[in-house]
Amino acid sequence: MDRFAVVKVSGAVFDLQNKGGEIVRRVAQQLAMAAEIGWRVAAVAGGGNIARIYIGAARDLGASEAALDELGILITRANAELLIAALGGHAYPSVPQTLGELLSASASNRRIIVMGGLQPGQSTNAVAALAAESLGAEILVNATDVDGVYTEDPRKNPGAVKLRSVSVDDLARLLSGAGHRAGTYELLDHVSIHILGRSSIPTVVTSYDGILAALKGEDVGTRITY
Amino acid sequence: MDRFAVVKVSGAVFDLQNKGGEIVRRVAQQLAMAAEIGWRVAAVAGGGNIARIYIGAARDLGASEAALDELGILITRANAELLIAALGGHAYPSVPQTLGELLSASASNRRIIVMGGLQPGQSTNAVAALAAESLGAEILVNATDVDGVYTEDPRKNPGAVKLRSVSVDDLARLLSGAGHRAGTYELLDHVSIHILGRSSIPTVVTSYDGILAALKGEDVGTRITY
Amino acid sequence: MDRFAVVKVSGAVFDLQNKGGEIVRRVAQQLAMAAEIGWRVAAVAGGGNIARIYIGAARDLGASEAALDELGILITRANAELLIAALGGHAYPSVPQTLGELLSASASNRRIIVMGGLQPGQSTNAVAALAAESLGAEILVNATDVDGVYTEDPRKNPGAVKLRSVSVDDLARLLSGAGHRAGTYELLDHVSIHILGRSSIPTVVTSYDGILAALKGEDVGTRITY
Amino acid sequence: MDRFAVVKVSGAVFDLQNKGGEIVRRVAQQLAMAAEIGWRVAAVAGGGNIARIYIGAARDLGASEAALDELGILITRANAELLIAALGGHAYPSVPQTLGELLSASASNRRIIVMGGLQPGQSTNAVAALAAESLGAEILVNATDVDGVYTEDPRKNPGAVKLRSVSVDDLARLLSGAGHRAGTYELLDHVSIHILGRSSIPTVVTSYDGILAALKGEDVGTRITY
Amino acid sequence: MDRFAVVKVSGAVFDLQNKGGEIVRRVAQQLAMAAEIGWRVAAVAGGGNIARIYIGAARDLGASEAALDELGILITRANAELLIAALGGHAYPSVPQTLGELLSASASNRRIIVMGGLQPGQSTNAVAALAAESLGAEILVNATDVDGVYTEDPRKNPGAVKLRSVSVDDLARLLSGAGHRAGTYELLDHVSIHILGRSSIPTVVTSYDGILAALKGEDVGTRITY
Amino acid sequence: MDRFAVVKVSGAVFDLQNKGGEIVRRVAQQLAMAAEIGWRVAAVAGGGNIARIYIGAARDLGASEAALDELGILITRANAELLIAALGGHAYPSVPQTLGELLSASASNRRIIVMGGLQPGQSTNAVAALAAESLGAEILVNATDVDGVYTEDPRKNPGAVKLRSVSVDDLARLLSGAGHRAGTYELLDHVSIHILGRSSIPTVVTSYDGILAALKGEDVGTRITY
Repeated sequence: MDRFAVVKVSGAVFDLQNKGGEIVRRVAQQLAMAAEIGWRVAAVAGGGNIARIYIGAARDLGASEAALDELGILITRANAELLIAALGGHAYPSVPQTLGELLSASASNRRIIVMGGLQPGQSTNAVAALAAESLGAEILVNATDVDGVYTEDPRKNPGAVKLRSVSVDDLARLLSGAGHRAGTYELLDHVSIHILGRSSIPTVVTSYDGILAALKGEDVGTRITY
Repeated sequence: MDRFAVVKVSGAVFDLQNKGGEIVRRVAQQLAMAAEIGWRVAAVAGGGNIARIYIGAARDLGASEAALDELGILITRANAELLIAALGGHAYPSVPQTLGELLSASASNRRIIVMGGLQPGQSTNAVAALAAESLGAEILVNATDVDGVYTEDPRKNPGAVKLRSVSVDDLARLLSGAGHRAGTYELLDHVSIHILGRSSIPTVVTSYDGILAALKGEDVGTRITY
Repeated sequence: MDRFAVVKVSGAVFDLQNKGGEIVRRVAQQLAMAAEIGWRVAAVAGGGNIARIYIGAARDLGASEAALDELGILITRANAELLIAALGGHAYPSVPQTLGELLSASASNRRIIVMGGLQPGQSTNAVAALAAESLGAEILVNATDVDGVYTEDPRKNPGAVKLRSVSVDDLARLLSGAGHRAGTYELLDHVSIHILGRSSIPTVVTSYDGILAALKGEDVGTRITY
Repeated sequence: MDRFAVVKVSGAVFDLQNKGGEIVRRVAQQLAMAAEIGWRVAAVAGGGNIARIYIGAARDLGASEAALDELGILITRANAELLIAALGGHAYPSVPQTLGELLSASASNRRIIVMGGLQPGQSTNAVAALAAESLGAEILVNATDVDGVYTEDPRKNPGAVKLRSVSVDDLARLLSGAGHRAGTYELLDHVSIHILGRSSIPTVVTSYDGILAALKGEDVGTRITY
Repeated sequence: MDRFAVVKVSGAVFDLQNKGGEIVRRVAQQLAMAAEIGWRVAAVAGGGNIARIYIGAARDLGASEAALDELGILITRANAELLIAALGGHAYPSVPQTLGELLSASASNRRIIVMGGLQPGQSTNAVAALAAESLGAEILVNATDVDGVYTEDPRKNPGAVKLRSVSVDDLARLLSGAGHRAGTYELLDHVSIHILGRSSIPTVVTSYDGILAALKGEDVGTRITY
Repeated sequence: MDRFAVVKVSGAVFDLQNKGGEIVRRVAQQLAMAAEIGWRVAAVAGGGNIARIYIGAARDLGASEAALDELGILITRANAELLIAALGGHAYPSVPQTLGELLSASASNRRIIVMGGLQPGQSTNAVAALAAESLGAEILVNATDVDGVYTEDPRKNPGAVKLRSVSVDDLARLLSGAGHRAGTYELLDHVSIHILGRSSIPTVVTSYDGILAALKGEDVGTRITY
């Protein structure tokens, strides 16, 4: 029986202007090693700086919020292509554009599948949660540029404390102040939390260098409990 | 300059087993008259009883929540086809399956466009809000089997009071108890409320017989304020 | 060399209002067991009661016969999704929408593939015959709520006699009175019979509980001869 | 209110090896003139000699009957492109590949739409009948290399008599001897006749030089009665 | 009779990091004014800096040249979306992904259509030439960050002389040294020149602020002669 | 690690009017044997006589060069279907219509994949080169009706000398006189040569009976060097 892991790869990994493809390569290596130890892997790429540049320009030009989402999705797909390049022969060569395409691809071969966003009004966190639900994944790793869930934003408040685990309800409360403008989705938005909650998907929030550790079951990041 | 109205048509309208196509016809007549007085109309059909029958059977058979959403979407598209049939030559003959297809169709002809759901994880209320955002709609009418937003569920509590208007934040609080299992989305879920809020879309919640009145600017249902 | 069996699953199996998913589950179990004894299986789901409810409502609302066919096809696809749910990991997770997609899916993995209707003007019986032709199937099992071909309609005439075999020409004559209104296709219509005939596809008509027996080569139902 | 005419253009029109595009041009001129006198026109191109060459070669190479149909459909689409070329700016520039695409195209512009075959198991005559049904066409002109329906095949029997009109049931009887091998569909096959019958579509069978006359209501060819 | 102009909008226009959407807006204004004076306009967006960032990172990660082209195409489509945002209601809201979609869109409405790249192995200059050919365009404006064709690269050699016109053969010779690595296509590559040549498409190479002048027939940039 | 070979099958192989499917069969046998000795094979079918008949007729009818290319592509896809028929169970049953579909198919199964043209403005030689690039092929065999590259056209000049190898630059010079009208692409056009060059793809030009020998590494045809 296949054991699926879904990995949400934060947009911060695709900071090409400052780091080129360096972090992409590190993430790819971890995904390839996860596949070698038996995981079937699906990854979902986020947007990052370049998505924000496009969304900012388009907002100035008068685009609707839904159009901004579409633009962000295009960039997440370009990011997915980068991850595919870094994975080489380990990757399924196309980027699924619907959950149905993800499922078909997962049934047709055992390579790592990489996708980006799917639809306006859904963050890539929500896509990762839906992908985990669809594939019956055993774990969802949310890999970002902080190493877990903190009591406050650790980049703003040095006194913020990292949680080893957090209930989905507490997480929802922590995030309740965040807005929903296109491109500003933070960590885990309401939609993703609701999807995680309705299917009780085991989830770890960790840094992009902690993906493999999380998939090996090591005690990294923050676990979401139900 | 085109003035767009988006109408969310509740699944209750498609109660075929008890009422055949009777209410569908009444809704179609109102939409056609709205088009005659100058509105460009896009309608989004909900699921209703038959969606619930399918989702119930599929849940018993072990489908994932995402698969249940997909099944519900198929039925909303069948409902959309019914509304198209009732509209005859007033309707665009295809059901858009993405927001992009909706926009292309709206640019290519002036008929009433009818769609259903788009993607797992999104209620048809959220689709209606995204459609309104994409089209730059002047109004979103949410037409259902109650005639507005009440302080409590009017079907359970006869003392419930209908609100003439409600702020989007109060509405979010009113709904905060509702769950998110596939097929159980009520009235307006969190996603739709967030989309409405991020674009401040003028919205009226009213009964399925109040659509035309709402589009004529009459004082029906409950207005959502920002 | 793969041995393909195509199974037409009658709409009667999807009588959800009266039986929920119970018969769907029984059919799925037989298909899964057929796969275990070496058959490559493709199934084609019919419409049934809910298709008839939709078609009836749409006809009242003035839809064209071709539109009624389209609506019926949507419901057969919802039925196909139910069968996929019941099959779980044994099923290919997408519903092919053309014969080409069926062939691609069959070349890419060995799971049971489930589809519904394809195109107006074609019953799901015809689709099953075309699928059998395309896949070079060794057998087509037409599983319905009667256990074979009778000299007359056994639900109307208790003196009807079940035939152990029937030539395709005699079958055509037996059916020559049947009409072709959308949603009323009976057992095997002219198109399916012609396709069966042009490729001499070995076919057994049996009950939905006789599928596995037919695939084991047991003497059930009615055999069509050429 | 739009008045639609569907014109089935026989494969004989696309006898490129003997006649180049000459007859295609004559047909195009008639369609363009029909559009000028107010008809909304959809044309369906048949296969002809080159389809037969491909189907013959593929049958020798061992293709299934369904694959032969697919090959024939490709050639009908090439023929449709020829007719589009001949129509120039009068034609919608794409060939619809489903009835849904035909309907969308017909709602989005007023040009002449040209299509070929749609799906294995359906002759282009059946496609034309379905197109007429979907569009609510007032007339279907079946334009071929004979000028109507004869009591026998006029190319084989000089004593064959042309009928001014024929009932759909008599027509079915006349054709009852014809087989259904891919690429050999003659005049009007059973499927097309059943579709014509279920919607009582006014139909004229005439020569490819009689299209305009038929659309002007002149007394040419053979009328099918219901 | 529609008069089509195709405008190739150089990637330099989408220099978002340095200029935001400012030049995009200026180009959009010119296209909108061109539409007002009667031109039917199709625009093709190039790649630019961000395309180069992606292609550079992907090349480092080991992507094939064809994959680099695909990545570049994604970014040109994001650029096309920006131009659509800037055009607002003047633009067709979807980005055609094939020439067929371009033609369908152009037949279905009169808005400005914006596309990006289509296929690996083809620069957006080639796409613009094919679009001009398909639409029967009267003029192709190639708008870039230099104001015409020079005897040498004006950014490297201050003595370079701008040509008022150049024959397509001389142009081919001028460019014969340029390579073909993905993302490095310069001005007009061999493919575009061959397509221009085979259809003798009237072409003007000018700056991105000279588009409207070129479409008004003013003497700007460099004319390509045949 | 998979070793991919791409085989361009010249349109001359599909000379159905004179030779039926005979040469198609011979090519198919070689491809099947190549697969048996370990090659993963992708084949690209060219156009040939029937493509020229269609293109000639369409040019007379006034089609644009891009439309002629589209028509040629349709015929190459029909040719691809013939090759699939001849390959039977050895072939992937669908014809990829983009490079992405080719890559997905190659990741999902190990059968021989057959495609035709992709896009106007690209010869099937260019498609073969792009396919080789995308798949990381070890060899590209260009199989045609002459057995290699000659100093001059051997069908016109009996003194033409066959080259054992030719540098890509010399090849470009040899071909520099050839035009680019749709359907007249000869041997290797500029685009294909540029793609071959940018990725240094090992290429052999040989006769359609020399495919297997070339794939066995025998000294046949003309090698292109970089």
